[in-house]
Amino acid sequence: RTLRIGLIPGDGIGREVIPAGRKLLESLPASLGLKFSFVDLDAGFDTFKQTGTALPDKTVEVLKKECDGALFGAVSSPSTKVEGYSSPIVALRKRLDLYANVRPVKTTAGNTANGGPIDLVIVRENTEDLYVKDEKTFEGPNGRVAEAIKRISERASSRIATMAGEIALRRQKIRDVSPGTSHISNPMVTITHKSNVLSQTDGLFREAARQALSNPKYQSVQIEEQIVDSMVYKLFRQPGYYDVVVAPNLYGDILSDGAAALVGSLGLVPSANVGDGFAIGEPCHGSAPDIEGKGIANPIATLRSVALMLEFLGEEPAAAKIYAAVDANLDENKLLSPDLGGKATTQQVLDDVLKRL
Amino acid sequence: RTLRIGLIPGDGIGREVIPAGRKLLESLPASLGLKFSFVDLDAGFDTFKQTGTALPDKTVEVLKKECDGALFGAVSSPSTKVEGYSSPIVALRKRLDLYANVRPVKTTAGNTANGGPIDLVIVRENTEDLYVKDEKTFEGPNGRVAEAIKRISERASSRIATMAGEIALRRQKIRDVSPGTSHISNPMVTITHKSNVLSQTDGLFREAARQALSNPKYQSVQIEEQIVDSMVYKLFRQPGYYDVVVAPNLYGDILSDGAAALVGSLGLVPSANVGDGFAIGEPCHGSAPDIEGKGIANPIATLRSVALMLEFLGEEPAAAKIYAAVDANLDENKLLSPDLGGKATTQQVLDDVLKRL
Ligand SMILES: CC(C)[C@H](C(=O)O)[C@@H](O)C(=O)O
Ligand SMILES: CC(C)[C@H](C(=O)O)[C@@H](O)C(=O)O
Repeated sequence: RTLRIGLIPGDGIGREVIPAGRKLLESLPASLGLKFSFVDLDAGFDTFKQTGTALPDKTVEVLKKECDGALFGAVSSPSTKVEGYSSPIVALRKRLDLYANVRPVKTTAGNTANGGPIDLVIVRENTEDLYVKDEKTFEGPNGRVAEAIKRISERASSRIATMAGEIALRRQKIRDVSPGTSHISNPMVTITHKSNVLSQTDGLFREAARQALSNPKYQSVQIEEQIVDSMVYKLFRQPGYYDVVVAPNLYGDILSDGAAALVGSLGLVPSANVGDGFAIGEPCHGSAPDIEGKGIANPIATLRSVALMLEFLGEEPAAAKIYAAVDANLDENKLLSPDLGGKATTQQVLDDVLKRL
Repeated sequence: RTLRIGLIPGDGIGREVIPAGRKLLESLPASLGLKFSFVDLDAGFDTFKQTGTALPDKTVEVLKKECDGALFGAVSSPSTKVEGYSSPIVALRKRLDLYANVRPVKTTAGNTANGGPIDLVIVRENTEDLYVKDEKTFEGPNGRVAEAIKRISERASSRIATMAGEIALRRQKIRDVSPGTSHISNPMVTITHKSNVLSQTDGLFREAARQALSNPKYQSVQIEEQIVDSMVYKLFRQPGYYDVVVAPNLYGDILSDGAAALVGSLGLVPSANVGDGFAIGEPCHGSAPDIEGKGIANPIATLRSVALMLEFLGEEPAAAKIYAAVDANLDENKLLSPDLGGKATTQQVLDDVLKRL
């Protein structure tokens, strides 16, 4: 099988980690029977400055027409408001209907957290909530007032909860065939919301999620709920308790950064933007202007994002190989990039992972 | 000076900790020259079940007409949607225009965090954002859709930022007169928002906050910004860095639970709902149905909330006495309630603090 992959480095260290992701794909053992072709695509703040748009139509079209998947690096946010600029990754998620943002956060033997082992995944709704960006500003009696719409639909909530249920089952299957790889013993989905305040919007999310997960398919999956503020508290206090956490867009955004902090660095945490038959791997970190151009960005979040993309394209054996190679690098705890307290360069970490494939 | 204090225990352990707060006020040394009178007031889910409203008008009226301040315990959220029920504390904040929710989170010698000392305060806007609860539901082409309004005004944003600036200055003054009580050396306000997605609403919050804090009064205060997801990450990674964090309502809600986790228990974290000339002290924890009626709720969040209320009513010496007594209890690290791993009852912790006044 040949997969065509769009490469969208974006800004800053996106340009350093996406080439590492490409190299990883090119280095996969031939025994997997996978071939890759690549197409370079533009997006980001630099693209905006050059062309007036942060997400050229061409990028979206090539992804839609030619590609099986893609890797997205990171984009810089302008530090003051810039007329006409709007985040390309948010737009991309919507235009390709990549309705799930899947963010696994996991400790390994060499990369542990204070609070014991963690092996959870945040499944974030990726198309609506406040991210519909339906905003307006008007003059009120006491100055300006701005309003934004938080939109929650039954369909998107149900669909993301179904994805969470499927992921819970898949994780259980993997644990069943490889016992000892996780401390989690039973599949569980935790529905996060704030329906004690937002009874209609978050109430609908909660209800639709519960409804979707009441399907007998998910009978073996324990279903729990957690109010979002409480969820952040519990995430810090007992992160090892959680398996799959499903959340509306904005809470998912916040929770995944919180979970990333628990494993020590955003530089370790991957994500995949997943739609029907398409996936974009995307490291959770940003464009990191402070270390841009130094060649020291941690490539691991991207390498894991490559694996995650492959997983959602149905290439689980290839994904498993990558996860194992990355875990072996972390377990040795020697070749570490600066975000983990080491001195290794992007290239050195990449090479170390490649040799373990 | 005699202060009249409304007591609103609410539900669950609210009924166990608010009496402790009252006892603390009654036990303050006469040398402070303060007298208190009390009035018991209803609110909460039980009140709703009995009367059909969670916040009787009488409670609001008595607070407005007779009281100088109040203590609020906690309320239970119904576990499924209940027609007509709506959170009384959210309503109270709005009806009394208690526009700031102030939540200090601090380690002490006996109660440290993994990541070193913490001495920060979250200043949460308390009247608008998604808490305006302006929601509607309609039938879309693919099922139900619900929308909520996130409202951000220039006036409320400016006013909360000013409060944050004032608190930063006040904290610096206290550090100046009592050196060695904090590791923080310079006043700083961190403005939290998500203007990279919500350019109008959070953009307005950011702009109005910056504008308010550019007042020469706050010249000595360092002003920084942090996107909310990043803020959660940083809060976990380097909590000791922060002094005053100002945020719109919902982010403030989430951040304060995150910060509470860092000091080990929500049972330690106080808050004050502050308006012009009025303050309601409120522990950050909920009604804790799991330990209700056992007499083991940690009263410290409430005792500190009493101090915080007094601080905002201009009674700083009384507040300082309470903080010192609570810190002494924690520093001894002996009489601890179960949430901190000990066996002490609410009464025992209270008595221990009282004897240190
Ligand atoms: C850059 C920003 C628009 C984005 C988001 O909020 O989704 C980022 O925080 C993320 O998590 O991918
Ligand atoms: C109970 C709930 C409505 C409330 C809030 O969201 O403000 C609580 O979480 C708090 O922080 O006081």
